[in-house]
Amino acid sequence: MMTPLNRLLQTKFPIIQAGMIWCSGWELAAAVSNAGGLGTIGAGSMYPEQLEWQLKQLRAALKTEAAAQNRPYAVNLPLLYPQVDDHLRLIEAYQVPVVICSAGSPSKYTARLKDSGCKVLHVVSSTRFAVKAQEAGVDAVIAEGFEAGGHNGREETTTLCLVPAVRQAIDLPLVAAGGIGSGAAIAAALALGADGVQIGSLYAATTESSAHQAFKERIAAAIEGDTRLALKDLTPVRLLDNDFARQVHQAEREGVGPQSLAEILGRGRAKKGMFEGDMVEGELEIGQVSAMIQEIVPAGPLTKSLWEDCLRTLKKLTALTPLT
Amino acid sequence: MMTPLNRLLQTKFPIIQAGMIWCSGWELAAAVSNAGGLGTIGAGSMYPEQLEWQLKQLRAALKTEAAAQNRPYAVNLPLLYPQVDDHLRLIEAYQVPVVICSAGSPSKYTARLKDSGCKVLHVVSSTRFAVKAQEAGVDAVIAEGFEAGGHNGREETTTLCLVPAVRQAIDLPLVAAGGIGSGAAIAAALALGADGVQIGSLYAATTESSAHQAFKERIAAAIEGDTRLALKDLTPVRLLDNDFARQVHQAEREGVGPQSLAEILGRGRAKKGMFEGDMVEGELEIGQVSAMIQEIVPAGPLTKSLWEDCLRTLKKLTALTPLT
Repeated sequence: MMTPLNRLLQTKFPIIQAGMIWCSGWELAAAVSNAGGLGTIGAGSMYPEQLEWQLKQLRAALKTEAAAQNRPYAVNLPLLYPQVDDHLRLIEAYQVPVVICSAGSPSKYTARLKDSGCKVLHVVSSTRFAVKAQEAGVDAVIAEGFEAGGHNGREETTTLCLVPAVRQAIDLPLVAAGGIGSGAAIAAALALGADGVQIGSLYAATTESSAHQAFKERIAAAIEGDTRLALKDLTPVRLLDNDFARQVHQAEREGVGPQSLAEILGRGRAKKGMFEGDMVEGELEIGQVSAMIQEIVPAGPLTKSLWEDCLRTLKKLTALTPLT
Repeated sequence: MMTPLNRLLQTKFPIIQAGMIWCSGWELAAAVSNAGGLGTIGAGSMYPEQLEWQLKQLRAALKTEAAAQNRPYAVNLPLLYPQVDDHLRLIEAYQVPVVICSAGSPSKYTARLKDSGCKVLHVVSSTRFAVKAQEAGVDAVIAEGFEAGGHNGREETTTLCLVPAVRQAIDLPLVAAGGIGSGAAIAAALALGADGVQIGSLYAATTESSAHQAFKERIAAAIEGDTRLALKDLTPVRLLDNDFARQVHQAEREGVGPQSLAEILGRGRAKKGMFEGDMVEGELEIGQVSAMIQEIVPAGPLTKSLWEDCLRTLKKLTALTPLT
């Protein structure tokens, strides 16, 4: 199957592995890109020297595979990141084929990145920002709904409501994100008018994810209702239930302001939880689909089976339609 | 197309018009049932004598149409309703073919209703309650997500995440509800494993809806981000932005308890807003898809065009799949 997204990214499947802080280093990106999806390094939790090392490893991993040519990959660049200029220089120096920008204005770096030969995708959580991204000249838009593990909008619009609205508003290739937990959900995203999907939570719990083993196991154990959107007064994020999350929710129920929330959050919470494995006091970001994840699996076979399930779902739907 | 839901309900399309307080009287139900969907009287805002009158009108409207036989219809019965016993007796006396129960335990009345010859559907917002409903012997389950205008669960699970989870957990015909705003969304619901959909917001803004004209116009004017889940400490509901909703959100931000929220809500708020047309101080319940509604249209043609759009979407998806 070729959708406008496959054609743009030059990947086999219209599946993007989301860049996720502390979870998505080169091993995960290599596994996904080598399997036919678009692997992404999440640069938001890396110093420039770490990103450079990751890029070297990833490029080597994509070259040494059996295939004759290099596979495309991406870097996710949260534009709020303090050392964003260093990261941009690395992206240019290493000729990163695809950059996924998030958490910032698309008017800031899109032209520069496109001039360097990058394809630029921008993550949005509202139709208004999707239009802004199109106006800024991005190549594709990723529309991310309320159920996602991150990049959540204050409007709380769910993927099912956001994707058709964005589809009506822009002409660019469109990627659905948030709540994509199965091949059936990929098929649903295509039905809604998306040209492909971005998947985070499922990949956070793979063998190649750089997340701490304890976090992966916690994801696999998560049940419905275990995540909740929090920190809307700072940067909204979906937290997996633990002592830290309950402390945040309690503070929010009591109506404390952004200042107090920032104090509770402190520094290094996300690293503590997702990378160092503190399941009690660490910040654990994950999407609602964590409830559907039962085991830690390798990312390559996961990518392929997601796509096969999607095709199987599409065939089932075909059988439902009248013969005319 | 015949899905297990069509077969169960004996309707032409697997589309249920949701029972909604103050919006769904016999005119709306008749328009939907006569068009090939399942029209529903929302009994939650009716005294028993009103429900009886509505049933008489509806049955007459379904008989006088050109077709040779009666069309199926439903009554939505919120089980919290104080005069639920009177409603049950009417449902039995008038041999209502389908009853959609919500807001209460499925173990309470399912057996009695089935003994009277009713088909029983139960609305749930979590997988746990879907399993309970199946155990109680219901004929089908309606899984309603966070984006819906009512019946919202405290877990905040979105339709995209809830439907696949419920599909895995139960064998019964499954109806997706919440966020269904187009034929594409119906196709997406079928992809997720649903056998049909329940649609509320779109029908609240139809010509035949008993909602006040001012509320219908407010729905048509709503934009993304205009609704927000509220009153989670009482009964969660999605409110359209106005002075009343802002007062509730402010109180919730300040961390007031259920008692104060109940005082703010007072009595008759929903009637004041949705039926009497007070757009400032009334309670206006509507789903996130209100952002996609641009005009007030008749319910019959809406039902047919939703279904045609769904089939068109399914055909487009078929064209995407490989020929094998």
